[in-house]
Amino acid sequence: MTRARTTVVDNIGSLITNDPALGRGPLGILENASLVLGDTSVLHVGPAGAVADDRIDADGAAVLPGFVDSHTHLVFAGDRSEEFTSRMAGQPYDGGGIRVTTDATRSAATEELDRLVRLRLAEAHRAGTTTIEIKSGYGLNVDDEARALQIAEAHTSETTFLGAHLLPREFEGRADDYIDLVCGEMLAAAAPHAKWIDAFCEVGAFDVDQCRTVLHAGRDAGLGLRLHGNQLGTSGGVELAVECGCASVDHCTHLTDGDIEALAGSDTVATFLPAADFSTRQPYVDARRVIDAGVTVAIASNCNPGSSYTTSISFCIAIAVREMGMTIDEAVQAVTVGGAAALRRNDVGRLTPGSLGHAVILDAPSHHHLAYRPGVPLVRQTIGPLGG
Amino acid sequence: MTRARTTVVDNIGSLITNDPALGRGPLGILENASLVLGDTSVLHVGPAGAVADDRIDADGAAVLPGFVDSHTHLVFAGDRSEEFTSRMAGQPYDGGGIRVTTDATRSAATEELDRLVRLRLAEAHRAGTTTIEIKSGYGLNVDDEARALQIAEAHTSETTFLGAHLLPREFEGRADDYIDLVCGEMLAAAAPHAKWIDAFCEVGAFDVDQCRTVLHAGRDAGLGLRLHGNQLGTSGGVELAVECGCASVDHCTHLTDGDIEALAGSDTVATFLPAADFSTRQPYVDARRVIDAGVTVAIASNCNPGSSYTTSISFCIAIAVREMGMTIDEAVQAVTVGGAAALRRNDVGRLTPGSLGHAVILDAPSHHHLAYRPGVPLVRQTIGPLGG
Repeated sequence: MTRARTTVVDNIGSLITNDPALGRGPLGILENASLVLGDTSVLHVGPAGAVADDRIDADGAAVLPGFVDSHTHLVFAGDRSEEFTSRMAGQPYDGGGIRVTTDATRSAATEELDRLVRLRLAEAHRAGTTTIEIKSGYGLNVDDEARALQIAEAHTSETTFLGAHLLPREFEGRADDYIDLVCGEMLAAAAPHAKWIDAFCEVGAFDVDQCRTVLHAGRDAGLGLRLHGNQLGTSGGVELAVECGCASVDHCTHLTDGDIEALAGSDTVATFLPAADFSTRQPYVDARRVIDAGVTVAIASNCNPGSSYTTSISFCIAIAVREMGMTIDEAVQAVTVGGAAALRRNDVGRLTPGSLGHAVILDAPSHHHLAYRPGVPLVRQTIGPLGG
Repeated sequence: MTRARTTVVDNIGSLITNDPALGRGPLGILENASLVLGDTSVLHVGPAGAVADDRIDADGAAVLPGFVDSHTHLVFAGDRSEEFTSRMAGQPYDGGGIRVTTDATRSAATEELDRLVRLRLAEAHRAGTTTIEIKSGYGLNVDDEARALQIAEAHTSETTFLGAHLLPREFEGRADDYIDLVCGEMLAAAAPHAKWIDAFCEVGAFDVDQCRTVLHAGRDAGLGLRLHGNQLGTSGGVELAVECGCASVDHCTHLTDGDIEALAGSDTVATFLPAADFSTRQPYVDARRVIDAGVTVAIASNCNPGSSYTTSISFCIAIAVREMGMTIDEAVQAVTVGGAAALRRNDVGRLTPGSLGHAVILDAPSHHHLAYRPGVPLVRQTIGPLGG
């Protein structure tokens, strides 16, 4: 039996472990460190000079845990750049929104959808993402929701059934009938390919009672729970998420004091999606208020063709720091351990012995450059595959 | 005598020529086009299918003129990420600002400065910049200003002498003496290596009369004129720039109605530096108001270690569209023909027969994706060298 080869990443300027016991501050930073990786996991973290079979010279750069992007909608076809362009120009545009994507996604061949997902995943991986959640939600019928999840599960273990994304036009005026379908036949077809269930709790999408029905059905089918809430207003989504014990409630653009109090007393992570607020000209979250209340927060890309067509976690960090009152350290935590918490994972988002050996080497001596150098593709190398 | 080889860029989804006579709208857009390049210049623009010695398949992507970055401070050493981090966290930080960079730049070996400039230029070129202006301004003595310009002129013809960037500490309380030096011995040493002269007209830097003295001296030495103005307040910089016939006045964050009127009646370009407003939390320019008044505008990176450490023109476009009231088309014009106008060039910033053959192929079917996909490195290929 052969032993797996080991690799040392050496000559690291600053290593973020995310374990305060291993290094300085909440990020557990080690200067002049080395990181030893086995076949899949971290074997050793310590001072420079460790020895292994292979060596990667970080040349004084910062090394971080691979980014954990806990919220994406990667399985889609079609283009909505015209809708974006009109919105940015302040012009009315009734191009159909999510329904445009639903039509294009339903019509696309499976091979084409898979090709598009692979392109987006490669782009995300180049930009430092090593764990990614992928939702369905543009199929909105039994076969197309199941198909989206089958495509997604070939690439990640973090798959989410989002049948309750929007009411498809064939159910216009019959939302409760659609919720019955989501919780019945659609869930049965989706569940074998999904780890999580999610719903869009918002005026114009589904109300609190409908979302509760979906979450309960998902839980009964053995799925973990997550929720879209409080994007456009105080939808009641945050309260519902806490009530149901969701792993995460995502958006949280509008929060009452009661919402923040509820989150602080719960295991539910508040996941911010700054690129969506950027691309829709929504107000930015006051993350300071949320963090200071003791809530665990994450930041994710929300990559989707309508409201946030980016895979760049670095961009999300820069916006969070410029606009949301987060420090750079907090933003980096939010895209690593924060994202991991939102997926209830403790094997990713950190570089500690036993964690998965997923790391990012920057073209910079410090993680501060992720905000200091906005727009610059700062990830020199992503170590480890993208996946669950 | 051998003929230069020709290259056709074919299968272009949309080609931005910036010549309304060649295509649709102000950007002169051609769909399904081909672009034929000679050794250095554009030979032909027309429908797909042109033939040449070599072929680049754009695979349906958008092709744009290479970006013209008309304002950078690339010749520097040292790191100021801590200053940035403190500013973003709202903490006081008296780390010395520009003086820190001056000390580090003066101390750096010429080979090291050149190595740093090459790295930054390579990064800018990968991100689509093919014409770049480089200023001195961290030497602030005769030898170091001349050295910075000698380093810069090895890489671009668009070199700018910015001795009047800030008062060096050895001239504390003797600003007029420093201006005498700038206009005398320093200008004499700098002028052989510079195309332009520039000054920083701002409270805390130099006043209108001092800047006028510098500009007049530069003009007498045969240099073209540009000015930093109206970054932190209505400094009088815009009026001075128009009075002196500067090619461009840069920043323009704060403008009076009179400033806009003066610009509209002049040949002076208003150059916006959105990444600086991003990285210093300054208010963003209301570009709409300026454009609607008929002013020619440009957007540049202002790449420097203190207030705007980015080479990403795409990032500047995204911010201009989100925050400054510019349409995507206007922002793309501002980084191409706008930048060219700010450098009084008509051979770059466009893809028309006779222009330099500098182009960018995107990983996207339309230039709209430059704002639609924020943070994503969308430049697949940069055609043509970076230089003057």
